[in-house]
Amino acid sequence: MAVNSPKPVAADLKPVAGIEIGYAEAGIKKPNRKDVLVLKLAPTASVAGVFTLNRFCAAPVQIAKANLAAAGADAAIVALMINTGNANAGTGALGLALAQQSCAALAGLLGCDAAQILPFSTGVILEPLPLEKIVAGLPAAVANLTADNWYNAAEAIMTTDTQPKAGSRSVTIGGHAVTMTGISKGAGMIKPNMATMLGFLAFDAKVAQPVLDVLVQQVADLTFNCITIDGDTSTNDSFMLIATGAGTLEVNSVDAPEYAELKAAVTELSLFLAQAIVRDGEGATKFITVTVEGGKSVDECRKIAYSIGHSPLVKTAFFASDPNLGRILAAIGYAGVDDLDVDQLNLYLDDVWVAKNGGRNPDYKEEDGQRVMKHSEIAVRVTLARGDAAATIYTCDLSHDYVTINADYRS
Amino acid sequence: MAVNSPKPVAADLKPVAGIEIGYAEAGIKKPNRKDVLVLKLAPTASVAGVFTLNRFCAAPVQIAKANLAAAGADAAIVALMINTGNANAGTGALGLALAQQSCAALAGLLGCDAAQILPFSTGVILEPLPLEKIVAGLPAAVANLTADNWYNAAEAIMTTDTQPKAGSRSVTIGGHAVTMTGISKGAGMIKPNMATMLGFLAFDAKVAQPVLDVLVQQVADLTFNCITIDGDTSTNDSFMLIATGAGTLEVNSVDAPEYAELKAAVTELSLFLAQAIVRDGEGATKFITVTVEGGKSVDECRKIAYSIGHSPLVKTAFFASDPNLGRILAAIGYAGVDDLDVDQLNLYLDDVWVAKNGGRNPDYKEEDGQRVMKHSEIAVRVTLARGDAAATIYTCDLSHDYVTINADYRS
Repeated sequence: MAVNSPKPVAADLKPVAGIEIGYAEAGIKKPNRKDVLVLKLAPTASVAGVFTLNRFCAAPVQIAKANLAAAGADAAIVALMINTGNANAGTGALGLALAQQSCAALAGLLGCDAAQILPFSTGVILEPLPLEKIVAGLPAAVANLTADNWYNAAEAIMTTDTQPKAGSRSVTIGGHAVTMTGISKGAGMIKPNMATMLGFLAFDAKVAQPVLDVLVQQVADLTFNCITIDGDTSTNDSFMLIATGAGTLEVNSVDAPEYAELKAAVTELSLFLAQAIVRDGEGATKFITVTVEGGKSVDECRKIAYSIGHSPLVKTAFFASDPNLGRILAAIGYAGVDDLDVDQLNLYLDDVWVAKNGGRNPDYKEEDGQRVMKHSEIAVRVTLARGDAAATIYTCDLSHDYVTINADYRS
Repeated sequence: MAVNSPKPVAADLKPVAGIEIGYAEAGIKKPNRKDVLVLKLAPTASVAGVFTLNRFCAAPVQIAKANLAAAGADAAIVALMINTGNANAGTGALGLALAQQSCAALAGLLGCDAAQILPFSTGVILEPLPLEKIVAGLPAAVANLTADNWYNAAEAIMTTDTQPKAGSRSVTIGGHAVTMTGISKGAGMIKPNMATMLGFLAFDAKVAQPVLDVLVQQVADLTFNCITIDGDTSTNDSFMLIATGAGTLEVNSVDAPEYAELKAAVTELSLFLAQAIVRDGEGATKFITVTVEGGKSVDECRKIAYSIGHSPLVKTAFFASDPNLGRILAAIGYAGVDDLDVDQLNLYLDDVWVAKNGGRNPDYKEEDGQRVMKHSEIAVRVTLARGDAAATIYTCDLSHDYVTINADYRS
């Protein structure tokens, strides 16, 4: 698609000491396609995650949350296991049992307890997990465990994604070298309160569990919780941070100066991975950044930004490169900010001042709007003039291909 | 489109004593198209309305609300005036001035004050109202005022509608004959809190103003506030009830037995007009009724029903006739009912029991789901088993044509 970043290059993805990666082609949905992934952690690693708020939280998410909560010094998480092709959601008690059995199968191969495995699934909802295929595929995944498999990992978690999403960073924090690599996937069913279907980011610092728990929430709120494609929140969304502890940096407090630097670096890479999902949004031809400034609270700024980002009318106008910008005002107006004084509101499209004090800017010219709408990356900026809060979200347009992809997804 | 009701027949639309209708081809957006409408009321008439909650409430809506509030026995509303082709929204102080001037022009022709006119506009947002064209068209509209113009009225308020929407009913209430005729328009930018862009329903009973004010809100909540096409709430949505007072029925209290009968009749016709909007939804190929039962409150049932009705993934699955019904569960799960116990939930598609106690019904067969999905009218029913409240909404699918229509709307 037009707005994708360049496809990642396998050689650019740096191994992270303390994590090994194996994959298999288990034939879950299609033959000859990587669909099972294992991330094996060093004993020094700590893991934290944020998960979907969907009440139809998938069976693997329920188990991952429970196992993560129960993990401790004497029973650390040993591996993460991901399958594509089946979400194991809306599957009731049977789904929980099948997810548990898949954990037990991997635990048997790795010599640990099933509770030390975190399972993740993505794919079709409401269909039984093909346990036998997963179990049959796991030995191959364990056999090819290596630190150098990040590109394969990014490919193994793809569903309707058109390209793998991955990135690496090397930073120095407090004199210590830190290497971090992350992958993400997802192209539909993307909304706030967990955005990507799946995101995994590992780095080789040692981070105390309570600190990592804070870090993952703070980073998610700045990155994966700021993207939307279609407003659908998946049953399986998960974003996981893995601190392998194999490097020399240690962070034991959120008040340590190293924490802020680590947070900045993890946020930057996470934002790259989150934006990669929007750029690869189902049918996307435009990448749109929506910033709302001058609000009374971040919450109201986000409400307005998401109202714009979710409006099918706004999204189809972007697809058509049609500066039908009144649709943006309409979306602002129904965002649910009940005391909004629209007479103070301004709307900008890149450098073009479209609406001034709630009405059409007298200096606005249709051809200026048209010029900006033709770009593949567009910034929408709204100023409310009622406070100091601001929020930014990232979204894409709504095209014929979105309908085609989602009408044909299972066929 | 496939799910439209039969096109109304002009001869079936009954005149309502006490209201005359005139129209003009003013060339606002396209030549040779009815685009200005005047509804002239008998002095006995009372009028009540509900209007969009969008903060970018259009200039004519602001004026209509103000004039309606100020109207009284010595300055009754004389006429409603509607133009298509331009919404006069997001137009600031200039938009208000232009709307006022259009009212003044019609008032001059009818010999009343501008404050006795209710203006309505629908069309493109953020563009100046073409006042001169409207003013030039009004004399023709006034010249052809007649009781027999309801079909022309329905045509005159169309924008992207593919067919006019109108209906008549004759009922007997407390021994009095009552004739009612209504029209509606709208095919996109349709959501709760005013649904249709425009709906007008007139009947020849005499109804006290406070009673009519209650009636319009109660009817709207049961009809126009129960439909959604794309989740976009327009800046111009209005639903108006006109009691012309020209017949023999009088209703002076909401406690009168005649009130309940009148409400039932007005609700039935309003629901027909509201559903006609969904049936003609932009690109719609399926008409979908979503009922949620067993909730703790109507509000939570509506939340879940709208979450299903707004989900682009659910809507594209209906378009594809693909029983990818897990998407419905996902939409229920993210509806925002935080304490929902999904293990008690059942999902039915027409007569097919799809999900039982939160998981796939063991007796559910894909071919049964497939059979229902091929219908052009489908009922989705969700039972929550946590209370006695219920709600029903009406929506349509999301097709390629929706994208085409909205990408091309202005070109």
